[in-house]
Amino acid sequence: MALRLPVQWHNKSRRIAGVMSGTSGDGVDAAIADFWRTSSGDHFQLLHWCHMELPPAFRLRLQRLCEEPLSIGEMAAFHWEVAAITAESVRRACAEFGVAPEELDAVGMHGQTVFHDPEPMCYGGHGVGLQVGNIAAVAQWLGTTVVGDFRSADIALGGQGAPLVAIFDWAFLRSPGDTVVALNIGGIANVTVLPPKCPPEHVRAWDTGPGNLWIDAAVELFFGKRYDTAGQIARAGRLVLPLWRALQQIAFIRQPPPKTTGRELFSRQRLRQLLQEVVSPHVPAEDIVHTLTRFTAWSIAENLRLFAGECTRIIVSGGGARNDFLLELLQEEVPSAQVECSELYGIPAQAKEALCFAYLAYRTLGSEPANLPSVTGARRPAILGVVAFAGRASTTSSLAPAEEGTERTDHDG
Amino acid sequence: MALRLPVQWHNKSRRIAGVMSGTSGDGVDAAIADFWRTSSGDHFQLLHWCHMELPPAFRLRLQRLCEEPLSIGEMAAFHWEVAAITAESVRRACAEFGVAPEELDAVGMHGQTVFHDPEPMCYGGHGVGLQVGNIAAVAQWLGTTVVGDFRSADIALGGQGAPLVAIFDWAFLRSPGDTVVALNIGGIANVTVLPPKCPPEHVRAWDTGPGNLWIDAAVELFFGKRYDTAGQIARAGRLVLPLWRALQQIAFIRQPPPKTTGRELFSRQRLRQLLQEVVSPHVPAEDIVHTLTRFTAWSIAENLRLFAGECTRIIVSGGGARNDFLLELLQEEVPSAQVECSELYGIPAQAKEALCFAYLAYRTLGSEPANLPSVTGARRPAILGVVAFAGRASTTSSLAPAEEGTERTDHDG
Repeated sequence: MALRLPVQWHNKSRRIAGVMSGTSGDGVDAAIADFWRTSSGDHFQLLHWCHMELPPAFRLRLQRLCEEPLSIGEMAAFHWEVAAITAESVRRACAEFGVAPEELDAVGMHGQTVFHDPEPMCYGGHGVGLQVGNIAAVAQWLGTTVVGDFRSADIALGGQGAPLVAIFDWAFLRSPGDTVVALNIGGIANVTVLPPKCPPEHVRAWDTGPGNLWIDAAVELFFGKRYDTAGQIARAGRLVLPLWRALQQIAFIRQPPPKTTGRELFSRQRLRQLLQEVVSPHVPAEDIVHTLTRFTAWSIAENLRLFAGECTRIIVSGGGARNDFLLELLQEEVPSAQVECSELYGIPAQAKEALCFAYLAYRTLGSEPANLPSVTGARRPAILGVVAFAGRASTTSSLAPAEEGTERTDHDG
Repeated sequence: MALRLPVQWHNKSRRIAGVMSGTSGDGVDAAIADFWRTSSGDHFQLLHWCHMELPPAFRLRLQRLCEEPLSIGEMAAFHWEVAAITAESVRRACAEFGVAPEELDAVGMHGQTVFHDPEPMCYGGHGVGLQVGNIAAVAQWLGTTVVGDFRSADIALGGQGAPLVAIFDWAFLRSPGDTVVALNIGGIANVTVLPPKCPPEHVRAWDTGPGNLWIDAAVELFFGKRYDTAGQIARAGRLVLPLWRALQQIAFIRQPPPKTTGRELFSRQRLRQLLQEVVSPHVPAEDIVHTLTRFTAWSIAENLRLFAGECTRIIVSGGGARNDFLLELLQEEVPSAQVECSELYGIPAQAKEALCFAYLAYRTLGSEPANLPSVTGARRPAILGVVAFAGRASTTSSLAPAEEGTERTDHDG
């Protein structure tokens, strides 16, 4: 008896903005794309995307929030602040492209992850995750339908709630003849493995370990920079053997999938502790960055060797795709595969996750599940997310009951 | 271009469960009702309701959460715990009535209020509120559509996000010839004033001050009981003049509407402080309960005298409707009006709020606004809440694109 969303959703192309705020909290990516369906499957065209830097104060607040106790008032204010930032990023992308937010068919927002522990814990066999960002507020401010909180339904069904990008990779990157690995190197790195012509139930995807999280942390700590441009710092350094050996001991890397992780396991605090324990104080800082970069490349490759089988192409996206040295190291580690950037497939490396959440909204509003149980471990596929509708009744008279069958919202086509 | 919900929503009667967890956290009320529409307006029939006590541990956790800093992990776990309790209360009401949760057309859940500060503060001219309880999880667990987070859209539009019961009172309690006041005495007391035949834009509603909050606190403190059964303790006491005078000084009572309040202004801490300041230690405890009860009656009446004009009937609901002494005091304060219990109108006093949230879900799924700007102060009416759809695809094959126009969910009628 659950309510059905309109069956006409797929009858025309839908213009959707996707918004992704990464776990590091340094910026928000917004992408606008058209999605449509033909007998051969789903298609998209990216129209515009932009990256919005966030003030350092926001990043500090997020870090503090994840590491220290906070008052419920601070928590509530942050929930609304993330909503304001989300709305602002969509407004900016819309203005740059020349479309009004109200003209979008929908927005898919990831929200800001502040907690992710997918292992069944406090209550009845499910994990616990929390994405903040007030979805109803964003819908009112932008004047369009907003879908968010995509991970909860999967977690409620015993899944890890991640990675959700797998359905996007399956829809748009699978190949008839090759085994394709879609690799996203954000704060955390994750892979989706797509055997030739694979049906959705044969897709596997998991987090391989840290992406840029520790590299960025070290670069900030020692060089006061936000990231290692093109991997120049790492390229100038050399391997620190005790650190290298300690990193390779991290159990998560060789743990078999399905597995996901968050900031908790690869926190700055843990990195600092590790450096204190195994690195002597006179080791050059670029050697540490070098070793962490090599570790990221190795941990991805090790996951592919152990759990992915033979693969032909590795399509890289995320901030890490701009780290040339990292990609070279990865190519050395997996010589038989071709390492490519996702731009080759019409997906700018940094826009992929935003694009993915636009696509997830497209699926939800088409009443279609988007989690892959083979990937997340959920008991079954589910329609993901919650939907806020932006009714734009301008007078209170619309509050009175109208004639039966009358259309009472001002839209759709 | 915002998505339209199905226009067929009003073509038949809809069976909806509403769930209300009060600010005190001592219990959850769940009500199941049928709603339908005719040319004369909306109608309902309450089918069943039940009250579920919550373990004292939950109440303590809620209190601590509102008063002390907490880790983000505790916050996240609580968000899921409230969802589990919400689902459990619906399951229980369904089992007692003999219906499966999946057979419900929808659930409307209030969630647990943990923060409410409607005054514009940190960001762009809106307040901040936070209801926790994972809506997507409840939808998956119950297998039906769930609507929740009803207050955010109104707050995002500059409103107070409360009282939301006004639209329910307007739909079901207005009268052609009388000025009706709907009075709910929960932890906080609130009134809705409905002039004869009033259109929705003439409705006014606001919080008058404490309901049972301070009475219950004193009864627990001095007598170790949860509440004052039928007002027996208060009836045995006498007025404590210094306390009475201090209470009458509380500015909120005479502040003109629109106004709303929460636990913050009428906390146990503030009551304890007040008692320490003005009550001598040898005053009998029943005198304190008597004075607090009298204060609740007076503060409601004072609000009606100052801001409601002449009224004919006062229809009382909420836990306070069972406090006979409180109702007698109220009747003395407003001799010209008839004080009645909402049961006379088919609304059990304790089920009203749960019923109200079922009705709010009915409106949202019919694409209709439910906030009254004259009541909340919002810039315009809005479709309230966010909606989680419980898709129940049982195989991953449903993940593949289907023929255009195919129905892909297993329901609706």
